[in-house]
Amino acid sequence: MRLSLACLTKPILHGYFRSSCSWRVRIGKFLSLALKGIEFDQVPVNLIKDGGQQLTDQYKALNPMQQVPAVQIDGITLSQSLAVIQYIEETRPGPRLLPADPKKRAQVRMISDLIASGIQPVQNLYVLQKIGAEKLQWAQHFIQRGFEALEPILKETASKYCVGDEISMADICLVPQVYNAERFKVDVDQFPTIKRLNQTLMKVDAFKVSHPSCQPDTPAELCT
Amino acid sequence: MRLSLACLTKPILHGYFRSSCSWRVRIGKFLSLALKGIEFDQVPVNLIKDGGQQLTDQYKALNPMQQVPAVQIDGITLSQSLAVIQYIEETRPGPRLLPADPKKRAQVRMISDLIASGIQPVQNLYVLQKIGAEKLQWAQHFIQRGFEALEPILKETASKYCVGDEISMADICLVPQVYNAERFKVDVDQFPTIKRLNQTLMKVDAFKVSHPSCQPDTPAELCT
Repeated sequence: MRLSLACLTKPILHGYFRSSCSWRVRIGKFLSLALKGIEFDQVPVNLIKDGGQQLTDQYKALNPMQQVPAVQIDGITLSQSLAVIQYIEETRPGPRLLPADPKKRAQVRMISDLIASGIQPVQNLYVLQKIGAEKLQWAQHFIQRGFEALEPILKETASKYCVGDEISMADICLVPQVYNAERFKVDVDQFPTIKRLNQTLMKVDAFKVSHPSCQPDTPAELCT
Repeated sequence: MRLSLACLTKPILHGYFRSSCSWRVRIGKFLSLALKGIEFDQVPVNLIKDGGQQLTDQYKALNPMQQVPAVQIDGITLSQSLAVIQYIEETRPGPRLLPADPKKRAQVRMISDLIASGIQPVQNLYVLQKIGAEKLQWAQHFIQRGFEALEPILKETASKYCVGDEISMADICLVPQVYNAERFKVDVDQFPTIKRLNQTLMKVDAFKVSHPSCQPDTPAELCT
């Protein structure tokens, strides 16, 4: 692979402290930072202020979908958190965010997509704004339904982490989704495997330092 | 990799003729059949009949998310179409469904996820059933919004196909989404790149033979 000048520029992550998709990339970044030596600059995009900074022409040029995150890296601009995470995985040396075994890789992708396609998009900000007054019940319904599917799958695939004993992209998807579940007051105690995995993962530095409660753009009243 | 007995069993695709996620796997299967020598048995799961056959306990054991597709392959059961397609990609020899170049792979995944996470889940059957009477306008709104984002991205990445001149997973996602757009009466003429790519791809055998209009479970009145 040719190393262009662009590769020498520090990647830029455009994100929002409370966006679960931005958090996924932050976890990937921190896992990579510790173990793959990659650092990002972070640019906050406030999804609420001024009617939503993701709707500006400037941001739209970065991500026409007008959602966070967007990442400028190696001379290209990527949106979609799992595309970003897998790009880091494939271009930086270091430990795997997907297992070596093809069946386990497939299970990691299945769990990641169950969350990233099956749960999160139906309860994201844009959809909830369209739902209006019923938004809490709507989000609860789809997270509850998703977790009811996820729990038996994880019961099969999990050991210490979502798939076996290595942290993977599936874990990167799980923790921010549990955070969303708690925000929308879904009782996570109903799902013992999800609850146990989340507790284990929240002890890992990459998940702690990337948490929405301690980002540069976290409002003071939400900082813990 | 050890070749277990399970690897010698023909994979089984549980799907529905009109499900765009099932169609993705059928295209992957046909591309692979022609070029990777893989064949599947197809088991229809009627999403409408009897209140929805995906809701039976028997199907729920295969896919707790109660959605199609589910694929039994090499002794494991996978749901989530992109996990299935990438598993085939990684375990069967033959031409790539993702390009060799990491940046192009990332673009393929970004486009695939924009569709598979950003558009399709918000207009799928389960969500539309929850929306009720307003479902046509709802689906139109989210497909229109998604295509407005997809068009400028494809304008940058596309050549003959979505990313460059090789068919990829992005093309596998695009064509079924255009089919959904047409079902919901979104005017695809507004998006010249999407329209042109879809026309080009619909001339490729794998996309034609897997089309919802000619599946074993397509009702006679919808067959063309």
